[in-house]
Amino acid sequence: MTEPSPSSKPFLRALKGEAVVPPPCWLMRQAGRYLPEYRQVRATANGFLDLCYSPGKATEVTLQPLRRYGFDAAILFSDILVVPHALGQAVTFREGEGPCLEPVRLAKDFAGLTLSGLQGRLRPVFETVKLLSAAIPPSTALIGFAGAPWTVATYMVEGGSSKDFVETKKMAYGQPELFGRLIDLLVDASAEYLIAQIDNGAEALQLFDSWAGALPEDQFARWVIEPTRRLVERIKQARPGIPVIGFPRGAGALYLPFVEQTGVDAVSLDTGIPLDWAVKTLQPKVTLQGNLDPVMLIAGGAALDSAIERILSICSKGPFIFNLGHGILPSTPPENVARLIEKVKAWS
Amino acid sequence: MTEPSPSSKPFLRALKGEAVVPPPCWLMRQAGRYLPEYRQVRATANGFLDLCYSPGKATEVTLQPLRRYGFDAAILFSDILVVPHALGQAVTFREGEGPCLEPVRLAKDFAGLTLSGLQGRLRPVFETVKLLSAAIPPSTALIGFAGAPWTVATYMVEGGSSKDFVETKKMAYGQPELFGRLIDLLVDASAEYLIAQIDNGAEALQLFDSWAGALPEDQFARWVIEPTRRLVERIKQARPGIPVIGFPRGAGALYLPFVEQTGVDAVSLDTGIPLDWAVKTLQPKVTLQGNLDPVMLIAGGAALDSAIERILSICSKGPFIFNLGHGILPSTPPENVARLIEKVKAWS
Repeated sequence: MTEPSPSSKPFLRALKGEAVVPPPCWLMRQAGRYLPEYRQVRATANGFLDLCYSPGKATEVTLQPLRRYGFDAAILFSDILVVPHALGQAVTFREGEGPCLEPVRLAKDFAGLTLSGLQGRLRPVFETVKLLSAAIPPSTALIGFAGAPWTVATYMVEGGSSKDFVETKKMAYGQPELFGRLIDLLVDASAEYLIAQIDNGAEALQLFDSWAGALPEDQFARWVIEPTRRLVERIKQARPGIPVIGFPRGAGALYLPFVEQTGVDAVSLDTGIPLDWAVKTLQPKVTLQGNLDPVMLIAGGAALDSAIERILSICSKGPFIFNLGHGILPSTPPENVARLIEKVKAWS
Repeated sequence: MTEPSPSSKPFLRALKGEAVVPPPCWLMRQAGRYLPEYRQVRATANGFLDLCYSPGKATEVTLQPLRRYGFDAAILFSDILVVPHALGQAVTFREGEGPCLEPVRLAKDFAGLTLSGLQGRLRPVFETVKLLSAAIPPSTALIGFAGAPWTVATYMVEGGSSKDFVETKKMAYGQPELFGRLIDLLVDASAEYLIAQIDNGAEALQLFDSWAGALPEDQFARWVIEPTRRLVERIKQARPGIPVIGFPRGAGALYLPFVEQTGVDAVSLDTGIPLDWAVKTLQPKVTLQGNLDPVMLIAGGAALDSAIERILSICSKGPFIFNLGHGILPSTPPENVARLIEKVKAWS
């Protein structure tokens, strides 16, 4: 009897702490509007949420960038707002306008939110994960994801995107018990959601905390680090060994306590993080992922080449996954993505 | 003969490196829409730029928060976009929509931009500075300001506010020589503008680089640090001894190279900067300013009190100026500002 061999998927090896050369590569929002074949499928769906809840279509758009570029990981096509939707909040996406939610601001607004319908409402997402798990190439890993509680809470309280997060912060600062109830509910819901993704075939998870950078450090500790720590703990207790990537975008120097205190296996670096600092301070503790500016992928040419080389030369001596520092932009020329993957794969 | 005594203005003493107790206090956008008396004057102006270019009205709104709260500094009421306007770019402000500029994107768009009309067009601003210099109380300092070249360039290239800065970064990354011409022009224009503010009575300057956090570190070095360094050098060569405050908002750990390389006397900390890190890393080199979350001023109550105390207790052992980490928000209750200034003034 031999032990099962270590996973041969480069992405999972990197998450386990191995310095894989060339580093595995995927891109946030790699399934998306910059691809004509995505826009074609999108046009057949009855709105964005319908696309997320149609296993066949969601599977197809997830696979599209793999066919073109051979990325080392596929990420489930879905949206972080399916969780509030599954909790019972009204969520709509209007073309070109971003999400619109019925805001949760007062204690009475919590009455409509419940965990009881979550499994049923999210069944199509789990079905997508299952289809993907069977469909992806053997060397490709499948990433499940959710929004982190803080970021999802901002959408729930503001009722959509926000610039200053006035309503969310007013609740978090002025009524921390009430806001804490919302965060606790999101920890519960996200744990349930992510564990079901694992059970349907997700091999790693990413927690998107896009608005982590909006909080001062003490509030960051309370509303970013602490709920993430509890969520990671819940996932790892339920399904030991599943790697989790945190993405506290905009957290600056607070990436360090995030890495030290949440229990994540990896962090995704936003575009602004100094790489020497990240390699020295964070990489001894976790795998790094990131951090190419998505606009570099639009600019292309020599600037793109040298930005890719710079990231690879600084980060790839330790455990590292090549990625963007933020989601790919709709105006990205697909040929620049091909150039990127070629450069990364040629790295030695 | 005795030497002239050191300035008795607490704000200027803090900028010279003194740990003033209680620390001096002013707030970014302290003259603004949260004050009913501001809205009254604003209603008499023919648009926002007209208010900036009307010395009597601009002086009045600058003085309003001093009368209410006795801040230690007044900041000239103006806008960072008067510089592109003075260079010849079309700039308009539409109510509730933010600024709108005729975008500068191609080499030919530069033809309309010239330094020659700058002094004439900005004369009303200099007149405001002169009026303010005569009108403010003797212990109050007068701050002049400009946008930093990078941030002003984003508005000039995008044609207004932006989320992703795609057009600006495309130029900066893909055509660095062309973008460098714009930045050089802004260094020249800003130097001239700021030196004239000094000559009319400004006693300190602040450079607002609101979008500094949008750039990866190598581009930050090129488009934030380097132009700021040149601008500070030009100002200090022309008018030695004038203190300059930098505000590279969102720069995270890049605050450190900014402080080390630009020659600023002080940095304004955004809301996300960890204060222990700032005190340990930055305060030995420069005066700190900041960093209360403007939403705390809306939340008020015990949360506001403890946030103020936390900042004071961490930062006030060294040279420090109490301020927000971002501009005051229009929905701020004026009585919370009164409470803030009372708490800061009672600190010992």
